[in-house]
Amino acid sequence: MKTPKAVERLIESFERLPGIGPKTAQRLTFYLLHFPQSELERFAESLTNLKKGTVLCSICRNVSETDPCGTCGDAGRDKGIVLVVEQPLDTLAVERMGKFKGVYHVIHGAINPLENIGPDELHIKELIKRVREGGIREVILGTNPTMEGEATAMFIKKQVGEVAFNGRGISISRLGVGIPTGADIEYADESTIFQAIEGRRSY
Amino acid sequence: MKTPKAVERLIESFERLPGIGPKTAQRLTFYLLHFPQSELERFAESLTNLKKGTVLCSICRNVSETDPCGTCGDAGRDKGIVLVVEQPLDTLAVERMGKFKGVYHVIHGAINPLENIGPDELHIKELIKRVREGGIREVILGTNPTMEGEATAMFIKKQVGEVAFNGRGISISRLGVGIPTGADIEYADESTIFQAIEGRRSY
Repeated sequence: MKTPKAVERLIESFERLPGIGPKTAQRLTFYLLHFPQSELERFAESLTNLKKGTVLCSICRNVSETDPCGTCGDAGRDKGIVLVVEQPLDTLAVERMGKFKGVYHVIHGAINPLENIGPDELHIKELIKRVREGGIREVILGTNPTMEGEATAMFIKKQVGEVAFNGRGISISRLGVGIPTGADIEYADESTIFQAIEGRRSY
Repeated sequence: MKTPKAVERLIESFERLPGIGPKTAQRLTFYLLHFPQSELERFAESLTNLKKGTVLCSICRNVSETDPCGTCGDAGRDKGIVLVVEQPLDTLAVERMGKFKGVYHVIHGAINPLENIGPDELHIKELIKRVREGGIREVILGTNPTMEGEATAMFIKKQVGEVAFNGRGISISRLGVGIPTGADIEYADESTIFQAIEGRRSY
């Protein structure tokens, strides 16, 4: 028995996505066979238009519909505070919290020598340029607390520090690490507990 | 901050798929932003062509490129033995095993009163018609060993039994249930252990 080519091709497309293995790709494809053709076409259209309908904001490099993006163009946001994150999705998580009134800089990844990603592959130059142009009082390093994210934070700190040394006072901070709200200390790993104790606050 | 519409639309499309929640849909969509446009278009094309490139085999109701499908049209398969399964994916699982030389009948679901799926919503009539037309010696019921699958198997058994009663000797069997190969008896549920003991074989 042969799987129809049309089915196989869609399975292959799904398999290219992260976290979707051959089994899930099969399941999704056979599920889509029950969809009306119009819905399949809507899905196809949203794929084709994904990149056509988006740009990278020329200021913060976030994925956006307009350039500059809504955040960079918003007069109510404090352009003096820049939160540096790895991915566009990270800004969505911060926005959900709803209390950050500064702006972002998305570097699109983290330094990872094993995958041949160095500082030049990331949008770090653009951040340094923003800092150099002035107006920024604080850079908050919001890369992930992973090995790669920490290395990236260290690198950016050094680069921003050099600019700051040349006559500008810019404070550099790192997002707090520790036990997440709602979690159980019992299950926290050693590194998190160590960081939580290091980062304890008077109470 | 607003997510671009093009991004939101693709997230919505992904969310309609089974097992893909809002978070995964977001992750997949932002991942696809790194794809070259040509790959997005290939993906879109495979979605649009999915149903255009497939038909349901008029004999076994399996998803196929041709009608009759490769299995029903294969002179080397025994048309006297019909394995009844719920979904096209089930036939793929059986084919992977590679030792089944009969043919299939795909009923596309199981009787499920809670979801308003009765026998008429499934391709059971077509199976009875095949049985009535003759040439079938054995019907193997391969619906899932779930409540719905068992009810469906019972229903088909009764229907096929009536045809068989009218002058044809057709044997009806059910796929064996028990502990799956490689599994641990310690973790098997009560029903499986009960079925495994009921279905024990001399050794």
